Amino acid sequence: MGEFHKMHGLGNDFVIIDARLQSIEISPTRAQMIADRKFGIGCDQLILLLTSEIADVRMRIFNPDGSEVEACGNASRCVVALLNQDLNIETLGGIISGKLSGNDVEVSMGEATFGWQDIPLAFAMNTDAMPLAWDNLAAPMAVNMGNPHAVFFVDDVDAVDLRQLGPTIENDSVFPERVNVNVASIAGNEIHLNVWERGAGLTGACGTGACATAVAAIRQGKATSPVTVHQSGGTLTIDWSPGQPVIMTGSATYVFKGQADWDAFG
Amino acid sequence: MGEFHKMHGLGNDFVIIDARLQSIEISPTRAQMIADRKFGIGCDQLILLLTSEIADVRMRIFNPDGSEVEACGNASRCVVALLNQDLNIETLGGIISGKLSGNDVEVSMGEATFGWQDIPLAFAMNTDAMPLAWDNLAAPMAVNMGNPHAVFFVDDVDAVDLRQLGPTIENDSVFPERVNVNVASIAGNEIHLNVWERGAGLTGACGTGACATAVAAIRQGKATSPVTVHQSGGTLTIDWSPGQPVIMTGSATYVFKGQADWDAFG
Repeated sequence: MGEFHKMHGLGNDFVIIDARLQSIEISPTRAQMIADRKFGIGCDQLILLLTSEIADVRMRIFNPDGSEVEACGNASRCVVALLNQDLNIETLGGIISGKLSGNDVEVSMGEATFGWQDIPLAFAMNTDAMPLAWDNLAAPMAVNMGNPHAVFFVDDVDAVDLRQLGPTIENDSVFPERVNVNVASIAGNEIHLNVWERGAGLTGACGTGACATAVAAIRQGKATSPVTVHQSGGTLTIDWSPGQPVIMTGSATYVFKGQADWDAFG
Repeated sequence: MGEFHKMHGLGNDFVIIDARLQSIEISPTRAQMIADRKFGIGCDQLILLLTSEIADVRMRIFNPDGSEVEACGNASRCVVALLNQDLNIETLGGIISGKLSGNDVEVSMGEATFGWQDIPLAFAMNTDAMPLAWDNLAAPMAVNMGNPHAVFFVDDVDAVDLRQLGPTIENDSVFPERVNVNVASIAGNEIHLNVWERGAGLTGACGTGACATAVAAIRQGKATSPVTVHQSGGTLTIDWSPGQPVIMTGSATYVFKGQADWDAFG
């Protein structure tokens, strides 16, 4: 019987297996079976903890289809909370630093970039106010946070039908690697945010979307760091100064501990 | 920390808590939080095992909205497999008898009834071939298996668009308590079945639908008992003779054991 932990960060939920304490191989089939919510354990991503040569721990992240993900801020917070110590975490996307901060966890999300080739966009253009519009959504700021984001500031986020406009913008030819669509309103240093996630659709919380949107607001002088970002799944605090990495602080919730016979999982 | 078990019968999945071994109160809020697939443990139904004055064990069944369910064949199979012994199980819907049968579990599902008032229907009519049609679906047999069923036999179950016709038939005025819509094809004593479940829509497996459909096939001389019923979630075997209770045999799969702090669940 192998042990696992079920945790979530703002409803982005994980099965975490510490493979330093047990022998387990993850095939795509096994990842699919573990992630299945009715026949398996159920999660958005499966997290495997391994020994690292260059950091405190190595984290591998598997999607429910068995494919491997480079990095995930929500999962990094959960790993720091689970091991209950400040950590450098080795991922396919580089090293993520995480620190305990009261009941929350603070994670360095790397640097935001703004060049049109960085996003990437199909053509050279002003990324602080792209000269484009989709219905009432116009002139987004483009930000790369390890993945591409378009950020639209509006008066009322819930008046925007992202189920309809999200897929259109995500797949627009100006975004050759597609894009995450962020629709946000600002009051003081508080942001309300809805995100259409590339490949996933509407989600309760998107960590890189919160970072990209806070950075856009700070860069455009609409807010000052630190910024509080509210999404339906919960709240994140984003610290950023130009030229510095983006720091995201938020909760990581332990839900339950489990024991399973991995041989029954593919 | 309280212990629980995660099991499924043909993909109908349950969190099972043996409340004879621990003290736990289930409020509607707590049932909702336990059933939540991202913030909680995740299940179709929460099963609570209690001591019984009149049977071996008492089973309470909670939906994800916190409401209580009368009986569930899939859950009964899981409880027998979990406790690993033949059992009489007290439920709000009466006593269900379950027996181990090799790796499977056999459960008595009670008697099928066929009177138009039993189903119930809005008008007196022949329940062996109701004189009604919806598109190409015509002349269903009506069966009550503790809940109302309409059974249509067709040549190719997958040629019927139940997403479109299911809600229409479910809510037809002839079924004052609505109806489960079963579309089935027969080859020998093998039935292929798709079910539109009342209040739930298309599901991977419906135990009472398999019973109602097998009973309809046997009663109409289209098959002889025992009948094997294939649904996308798995296979059930149904035994029935007129005047006898319906016996359903199928798998019950243990997935994992967990420990949770119930105080964190509402």
